[in-house]
Amino acid sequence: MIRRIAPDVPIVDVTHGIVRHGIRHGALVLAASLPYMPVGVHVAVVDPQVGSERRAVAVRCADGRLLVGPDNGVLSLAWDRPGGAVEAIDISRSPHRLEPVSATFHGRDLFAPVAAHLAAGAELAEAGDPIDAGGLVVLELPSARVEGGEAVAHALVVDRFGNVALDLRHEHLLELGLTLGSRVSVEGPGGRREGTVVQTFADVPPGELLLYEDAWDAVALAINRGDAAADLALRPDDELRIAPAT
Amino acid sequence: MIRRIAPDVPIVDVTHGIVRHGIRHGALVLAASLPYMPVGVHVAVVDPQVGSERRAVAVRCADGRLLVGPDNGVLSLAWDRPGGAVEAIDISRSPHRLEPVSATFHGRDLFAPVAAHLAAGAELAEAGDPIDAGGLVVLELPSARVEGGEAVAHALVVDRFGNVALDLRHEHLLELGLTLGSRVSVEGPGGRREGTVVQTFADVPPGELLLYEDAWDAVALAINRGDAAADLALRPDDELRIAPAT
Amino acid sequence: MIRRIAPDVPIVDVTHGIVRHGIRHGALVLAASLPYMPVGVHVAVVDPQVGSERRAVAVRCADGRLLVGPDNGVLSLAWDRPGGAVEAIDISRSPHRLEPVSATFHGRDLFAPVAAHLAAGAELAEAGDPIDAGGLVVLELPSARVEGGEAVAHALVVDRFGNVALDLRHEHLLELGLTLGSRVSVEGPGGRREGTVVQTFADVPPGELLLYEDAWDAVALAINRGDAAADLALRPDDELRIAPAT
Repeated sequence: MIRRIAPDVPIVDVTHGIVRHGIRHGALVLAASLPYMPVGVHVAVVDPQVGSERRAVAVRCADGRLLVGPDNGVLSLAWDRPGGAVEAIDISRSPHRLEPVSATFHGRDLFAPVAAHLAAGAELAEAGDPIDAGGLVVLELPSARVEGGEAVAHALVVDRFGNVALDLRHEHLLELGLTLGSRVSVEGPGGRREGTVVQTFADVPPGELLLYEDAWDAVALAINRGDAAADLALRPDDELRIAPAT
Repeated sequence: MIRRIAPDVPIVDVTHGIVRHGIRHGALVLAASLPYMPVGVHVAVVDPQVGSERRAVAVRCADGRLLVGPDNGVLSLAWDRPGGAVEAIDISRSPHRLEPVSATFHGRDLFAPVAAHLAAGAELAEAGDPIDAGGLVVLELPSARVEGGEAVAHALVVDRFGNVALDLRHEHLLELGLTLGSRVSVEGPGGRREGTVVQTFADVPPGELLLYEDAWDAVALAINRGDAAADLALRPDDELRIAPAT
Repeated sequence: MIRRIAPDVPIVDVTHGIVRHGIRHGALVLAASLPYMPVGVHVAVVDPQVGSERRAVAVRCADGRLLVGPDNGVLSLAWDRPGGAVEAIDISRSPHRLEPVSATFHGRDLFAPVAAHLAAGAELAEAGDPIDAGGLVVLELPSARVEGGEAVAHALVVDRFGNVALDLRHEHLLELGLTLGSRVSVEGPGGRREGTVVQTFADVPPGELLLYEDAWDAVALAINRGDAAADLALRPDDELRIAPAT
């Protein structure tokens, strides 16, 4: 659809690997990818409510990026940066949509056509009806806290290797006194296990648990050449208790 | 291969998700995708008989599209539209082929090179030997019928979410007196179940069965946030009996 | 990343289907694909030692291709052709790298940026520090031998269909007296089975074992419409004994 409307616009296909109905997964991947991509029109569709009353939106970020997708939170982490969302348009009845819009495939009939017209130079304001950017749906993420010498953290997203990104940041590790080489205790739904705080997988032997800062500055759990999520029985939102091993 | 022969031709990679040996699956996806794509050269390769006597063909449609692939039916639903196939060429010994042609990878050695030359402007007539378009292999699909107040329908294709497209159309639903909101009985190999005729997934609670018109105008079965094919033990060609719930 | 640095460079995405940590799998796929691709900059990242002391390299081949990736053997089969590697650069501290380089995602922060700059015209010599091409890590593959009227061969790579490429070549078959139509005995970890030497899948009935030369000139095992690797319990490096059936 994009090619038909905007034949000369370069298209970058970031991923088709978002888990089904994974609004948060999509939101996290979109937000993590954008800083490495050229400024452009970015479409993200994880849309379990397609065809219902949920709005379809196009949003302009302070840095000039345009985001297009359902107003269910999947875009919200991507504008949650300095400047935020500076303009929002309800595109549900966009003049750019493909008529008739099917009830179940807005990626094809609505989001891709609107994005293509925007990429080809159409004005955002003419893509639909202006709405208050402050009223857009924002995704709530769990939030780690440090109490009594341990961090109560949560699994945010599990990648296809079984590596688990947490809602922990470097500052939490410092607060716990955890530095490179520290032994760490990790207690989750599947029991307690010990690992090591390191920089990368190869810093521990195969089969051992590591706690590291991943390539998007989140603290993450992995097992070198293994599957941490399976091993620790971890799923998104699960709570973990992380502390220096005694 | 295409890039080497025709470096400036834009390439759209529609899918690598066709089930193994799924000639019908490939044919249905190709036919469903074409109306949304720019007119061009369209290659489709699902080819369990590769290397045997099955012909390799290039076909011109009435609307100007060129189809390239094995003559096993995978292309046939794509030209089955007004005007049909207006010219057919046997490309098995095409001058555009890559010599030596391997016995098992005609996608690389035959279909892609021929398509690339056509996309770069080569004449269809010079891609091989003319054949009678009427003699091309045509895929036979099951055909739903309404009898005694119920529809005898068939599963045509199951997508990766477990949604099941049927050989039913809007007219069949009308004939059965089924409209939006109607309760419907669905009996298949895995037993009988009730659902609702709706427009989209979100119109029923999670876990409930819905009958809806999908984005390609086929009537389809799904379970909101579930897997209808697994739940109903449905595979392509399976017969279903569909009627108003009593 | 490539698009940001080199917006006008065409990108061909060969595969994301290499098995996890499959350095050999990646090396074989890269070497098998290159002869069919335009000469260019070719990035391959299978990198279980990312962040450790393993070097990151860019290598010029005699035919002008540039290879970029970790120095762990994944590139080595691709330059193992006439002329070999004629120039090698350690890019670990390349001026083209994205600062800060993450410890776990050199594909994004190092390999893609270096490749993009090279594709955009940067000099290889300026991408890092020159090293001796003779000191690059070279992948060791198993090697088939014929003894006592049978071939002792090894599974090299298993594709997603369960077809198994061996370290056998046409010459080995000749030495064993195996020609098209010969019946052949195949003994592996999962037991002994008979099959037929043929050109292509369709030359045997569904469910039967075939030995054939695949599209990259390796002798391979398959089951028509089946999964030879699963059926024979074969994994890479497993030993097989292949001989004319008696």
